[in-house]
Amino acid sequence: MNMYDIITKKKHGGELAADELSYIIDGYVAGEVPDYQVAALLMAICLRGMTIAETTALTKIMAASGDHVDLSAIAGHKIDKHSTGGVGDKTTFIVSPIVAACGCKAPKMSGRGLGHTGGTIDKLESIPGFRTNLSQDEFITVVKECGLSLIAQTGTLARADKLLYALRDVTATVDSIPLIASSIMSKKLASGADAVLLDVKVGRGAFMKTLEEARELAETMVAIGKTANFPTAALLTNMDAPLGNAVGNSLEVAEAVSVLRGAGPDDLRTVSLALAAGMLQLAGQGAFEECHARAENAIRSGAAFEALLRMTAAQGGDTAVLHDTANFPQARMQRTITADADGYLTRLDAEAVGRTAVLLGAGRMTKDSTINHAAGIILHKKYRDAITAGAPLATLYAESEEQIAAGAERFRAAFEIGAAAPAPMKLIYGAVDAEGWHER
Amino acid sequence: MNMYDIITKKKHGGELAADELSYIIDGYVAGEVPDYQVAALLMAICLRGMTIAETTALTKIMAASGDHVDLSAIAGHKIDKHSTGGVGDKTTFIVSPIVAACGCKAPKMSGRGLGHTGGTIDKLESIPGFRTNLSQDEFITVVKECGLSLIAQTGTLARADKLLYALRDVTATVDSIPLIASSIMSKKLASGADAVLLDVKVGRGAFMKTLEEARELAETMVAIGKTANFPTAALLTNMDAPLGNAVGNSLEVAEAVSVLRGAGPDDLRTVSLALAAGMLQLAGQGAFEECHARAENAIRSGAAFEALLRMTAAQGGDTAVLHDTANFPQARMQRTITADADGYLTRLDAEAVGRTAVLLGAGRMTKDSTINHAAGIILHKKYRDAITAGAPLATLYAESEEQIAAGAERFRAAFEIGAAAPAPMKLIYGAVDAEGWHER
Repeated sequence: MNMYDIITKKKHGGELAADELSYIIDGYVAGEVPDYQVAALLMAICLRGMTIAETTALTKIMAASGDHVDLSAIAGHKIDKHSTGGVGDKTTFIVSPIVAACGCKAPKMSGRGLGHTGGTIDKLESIPGFRTNLSQDEFITVVKECGLSLIAQTGTLARADKLLYALRDVTATVDSIPLIASSIMSKKLASGADAVLLDVKVGRGAFMKTLEEARELAETMVAIGKTANFPTAALLTNMDAPLGNAVGNSLEVAEAVSVLRGAGPDDLRTVSLALAAGMLQLAGQGAFEECHARAENAIRSGAAFEALLRMTAAQGGDTAVLHDTANFPQARMQRTITADADGYLTRLDAEAVGRTAVLLGAGRMTKDSTINHAAGIILHKKYRDAITAGAPLATLYAESEEQIAAGAERFRAAFEIGAAAPAPMKLIYGAVDAEGWHER
Repeated sequence: MNMYDIITKKKHGGELAADELSYIIDGYVAGEVPDYQVAALLMAICLRGMTIAETTALTKIMAASGDHVDLSAIAGHKIDKHSTGGVGDKTTFIVSPIVAACGCKAPKMSGRGLGHTGGTIDKLESIPGFRTNLSQDEFITVVKECGLSLIAQTGTLARADKLLYALRDVTATVDSIPLIASSIMSKKLASGADAVLLDVKVGRGAFMKTLEEARELAETMVAIGKTANFPTAALLTNMDAPLGNAVGNSLEVAEAVSVLRGAGPDDLRTVSLALAAGMLQLAGQGAFEECHARAENAIRSGAAFEALLRMTAAQGGDTAVLHDTANFPQARMQRTITADADGYLTRLDAEAVGRTAVLLGAGRMTKDSTINHAAGIILHKKYRDAITAGAPLATLYAESEEQIAAGAERFRAAFEIGAAAPAPMKLIYGAVDAEGWHER
């Protein structure tokens, strides 16, 4: 077996066998297979694709290339959740506490913001004192005591994925469904949970721009889960516009808190309840609608918010900012953007809003950028809202006037005002293996 | 401009602009563009192709990446020739002397054997004392005095091609027509000749297995030549079976000498005369058939053989082996393979014969192998010949009994004897921009 023959096989559209995939991945991790050969193979995979059998084999090999988190010490159903990344997506802060409040366990490892999309770890770190780098024992203890824990993913989880991702990132081989699916699922298989609910985002602000490719990605990941005896389901949710009104780290935590307290924007609550229902269903807590009702009840009773407070305290976070989100450190500068015409908001572009947030300091321009946890955007108008000239559309928050100016300039391309109300959009387009879900 | 965007463009089938190709090639030669990005791009090129405009731009940039040989001190028409590689292909030893004997100039830089195919430099080095590494001034002097010179290509000619070829060789990205065409033509553009005749080999022993792909390669190279104002024509010639009866370095030189002396195998003479006619036509020496007649005359008069003798002496070679080829050093061991049935030779596979020659020591198993100039094969029967059981088919020559045994074993798969005479095959299938040629 050698890389030349393996590359040739894939170049001609052949199906790689598990031992060939092991040869590549194990060899690459060991430094025996050079990156230029892997780069050529990755491009061949992008253009020729991989079957479900190949993708599953690759996923298992990548999962086995690093540590496997052992959560067997935690009793009960341990349900993970994964979002493919969006703008204003703070659902983790809502669904994990709901799952815990319903008697299940929600241990979750997360990442940082990437490009124009936010990351759970950056948002958590906006809570003063919150520790995201728990040891495995601490992680287990917090999950046992609080029903949930949110920590940063370590570099030793699915080690091959970390190496491959870095290479894909510089060789324009990121946007391949089998490679995306195996990257995500390898980390999920190694994470120690019993099952995972995937939130596959679709639209302008998502990596999957069309419903068709989002469905293909979701079906691929669910098929991998099935083959690996790891219960997996997926919802396909809207990411044309940002989710909720807040984009930026502490702004998003505050908005999640408002949902857990029974208020907050409708779209965020709707998507969060559906995701929580899907997770509870995977945990065997009944049919989808029954789980949905339990999730609503966990909010209404305050139990979900209590779970978030307990977990925050257990991980060293200052709960004062959650009890009253006005206690979060505030940005030095702010500017409100107003409408220059009457009409309707006919477009609100999640990617452009996400890019605006990065310019404001909420995300990273380069790997080494430091972020400002108070920076971001509060949207005052959403898609389809009626607009009056002069009415506030959004408020931008940042540390410097330069950032505000750059953000304001960028935000102008993020929306459009038209004369007629546009067609409504669905929040939840579809699902894979989540019986009983319905469009919302 | 950056590699990521360039790779992405080609991945989606876009056409790269000249400045993008310069960015890649100049950056790669300068060590600023890493090989993993070039590897990903090469695979995208293999699978997405390149237009003629792109391929021509790439060729010119590669030609400019190293030395440009200045042959302006040589008066007259300087015609180069290039074969895409075959088994038993010793035409250079026949056509270059013919061109010189007809009053034109044939300066030629050649390479070594590659895989199962032979190389002119290895063959030249079978002549005791022959120097293939002349300085540029010596090269020019020999061409001026003898009308031809054959030397080894330097690593500084089309420097980018050398680097790219090494990368293609380990990333399974060799078999792309635009990449093959630009590799060959970049060296021809830099070689200082006025024009080139390409001998594109087709069949089992060639890199191009079908007439269709050989024609595409020939048309691509001729189009590059046209765009670069470098007159280029091509013949498409048969490489299903070896050319001539001899395969192996000194054996092939001896066979070329026999053609120059008016004898030798018909197929070798036919192809050599057509190539020589094509070269003379490019040099403006008249119509194809007129050039063909001049080429025949250069053999008949002995002038071509005289030119070979003069050039050999000028480059330090011992002409005694050319005056009487029995003076070549002989292999220690030999074995004659005989037919085990009556019938006809229905298959004689050039690649298998080439691989046999490598096992006998005539070619290299690895880059560092030393070759035995006396090793090789003399075929006693050719395709379509009538066979009697017990008749000699071929004699194998090598240094050791082990090599003979390995070669004999391999040779068994090189031929087939059938009951009925097979259909005749053409030697010359077609041409591109060589007006007046005809099938032979």
